[in-house]
Amino acid sequence: MDQCKIAVVGATGAVGSVFLDILEHRDFPASELRLCASSRSVGKRLRVKGQEIEVEAVTPELLSEVDIVFISASGDVSREVAPLAVRQGAVVIDDSSAFRMDPDVPLVVPEVNADDLRGHKGIIAIPNCSTTPLVMALKPLNDVNPVRRVIADTYQSVSGTGTAAVEELRTQTASALKGEGSEPSVYPHRIAFNALPHIEPFKENGYTNEEMKMLNETRKILHEPDLAVSATCVRVPVMVGHSEAVHVEFAEPMGAGEVREILSGFPGIRVVDDPLRNVYPMPIDAEGVDEVLVGRIRQDVSHPNGVAMWLASDNLRKGAALNALQIAEEVMAKGLLLEPGRKV
Amino acid sequence: MDQCKIAVVGATGAVGSVFLDILEHRDFPASELRLCASSRSVGKRLRVKGQEIEVEAVTPELLSEVDIVFISASGDVSREVAPLAVRQGAVVIDDSSAFRMDPDVPLVVPEVNADDLRGHKGIIAIPNCSTTPLVMALKPLNDVNPVRRVIADTYQSVSGTGTAAVEELRTQTASALKGEGSEPSVYPHRIAFNALPHIEPFKENGYTNEEMKMLNETRKILHEPDLAVSATCVRVPVMVGHSEAVHVEFAEPMGAGEVREILSGFPGIRVVDDPLRNVYPMPIDAEGVDEVLVGRIRQDVSHPNGVAMWLASDNLRKGAALNALQIAEEVMAKGLLLEPGRKV
Repeated sequence: MDQCKIAVVGATGAVGSVFLDILEHRDFPASELRLCASSRSVGKRLRVKGQEIEVEAVTPELLSEVDIVFISASGDVSREVAPLAVRQGAVVIDDSSAFRMDPDVPLVVPEVNADDLRGHKGIIAIPNCSTTPLVMALKPLNDVNPVRRVIADTYQSVSGTGTAAVEELRTQTASALKGEGSEPSVYPHRIAFNALPHIEPFKENGYTNEEMKMLNETRKILHEPDLAVSATCVRVPVMVGHSEAVHVEFAEPMGAGEVREILSGFPGIRVVDDPLRNVYPMPIDAEGVDEVLVGRIRQDVSHPNGVAMWLASDNLRKGAALNALQIAEEVMAKGLLLEPGRKV
Repeated sequence: MDQCKIAVVGATGAVGSVFLDILEHRDFPASELRLCASSRSVGKRLRVKGQEIEVEAVTPELLSEVDIVFISASGDVSREVAPLAVRQGAVVIDDSSAFRMDPDVPLVVPEVNADDLRGHKGIIAIPNCSTTPLVMALKPLNDVNPVRRVIADTYQSVSGTGTAAVEELRTQTASALKGEGSEPSVYPHRIAFNALPHIEPFKENGYTNEEMKMLNETRKILHEPDLAVSATCVRVPVMVGHSEAVHVEFAEPMGAGEVREILSGFPGIRVVDDPLRNVYPMPIDAEGVDEVLVGRIRQDVSHPNGVAMWLASDNLRKGAALNALQIAEEVMAKGLLLEPGRKV
């Protein structure tokens, strides 16, 4: 099969919109595109590749008529729709955290672990938007010099939360500039001109879910079940683009030049590292860009085998929609669609 | 002497203004206050403690008429004015980095190393605004369980750069909200809705001056010449308040509860740590507050002897003006003014 039918669940959301945008510009062999969203958006018409497509409700019938379903809504929607879609014979590429740690579900960044797609059972998960750029940077280095420990502190944009959060940052910022207050609604506190060390609920160990995802997902994707990872995940008043300050400890010493060279050769990474000319990754430069930008690469002065770096990545693209579409491409290339006979 | 005459050089700047504000509300025994600034501001009148005070130029005569000079302007101003003030018999409390690493100059955070003031030779330096909150948190812990290594990634506000940067963030943000661009002037790139991993010039080793200050100043203040510290310093679109994600490795394991207890007992620290109720330090809560706020205290999942935490502090207060005034108080309390006989 060299063409496939695809459905996007959450088509009107922040990630869904970017998915459609990427689909327009990428040569993906979709013979049919179905758009789904919550009842609020059903009936709305979206323009994709010059064609007006009406937003539909998710139904078993619709799911039975497509080969691949991309879901980016909420964990609850994923938990409901994904198993149903698989029963109807569609491969699910899921953006939620619902299935990521399920041993039966491959968690995939194609440049890093595309082979994990083989033997999938219908659901394929994409990692959290702060994990993906991190594993992109760690993978090629870990292949050369085993990574022992990673500390990653994040500077995450509000679009990671969704369109309502982008709107909240806008309105709060406008109010703050006028010297007026505004009640937070999406976040527990004001995000305008602030930093919130709180992404996702807190766990008993004092970490947030988001921070523990960076540990657990990194281990799963890199096949390094004992890798030590500690993160502090922080929401900052940035619209699009997640940044991370990363400190890596390797098994052996490693020069910044070697790190730069290895990363430069890895697909999906762009080394942006000429600090004396004020060139380094920034979220405003990562927005709309496919690659993970890595820079500020330096030997860590605090550890003989340490390297510090800074990365920025479009959380809606490589952090979500682009990664999902790349998985769909791999699924097609490797012939990993579910067999037609499985359809009800 | 239980009263003293004080001059503020840089009285109209971001830190100078806060210094005057703190002076109004704190019971500092100033019998006279002289305000100095660049020629642009000379003749301007500022209201302090209900009194109008005219801004003057710095002259040897003026310096000879005061006991303590607080300088918060540029490194160049400090290098020029500080030695002159000392020759005129005044103790200098300097906010620049010009003298911090000079072995003859005490670098002081009063709660941490007030005893280093003894034997000063006229110039006393205050640490960089990202170092001060860090050493405040490290000191009481290091006294109980030696700190081996620290990783600190910062989220620094624009007021650390000065009033022009605050204005730049305002105008750029207003432009960005209207969908308009704006040329950066204070920073090399746009700061509105962005994150800049660039504070102070870059050094040959790939770190910035700001990052190396965090290493070198922390070592000097804690009297730990071999302490390993690595920082990534990042400017974020926040008006006031520097935050830091801190990962500490100790000689021995240490529970989060013990860390919380030790920090709670340390003057100048306020533990703000009830994440399940959305209580944690934030820059907007640190603004205008004397204490360094510390929270998100947890055992680091990546290291057996590790503790992770998050702090926020008013970079203009404890990070600069308050710390300076506290040093002046210590100088008075310990009788460490220069002897009158030294005056020319």
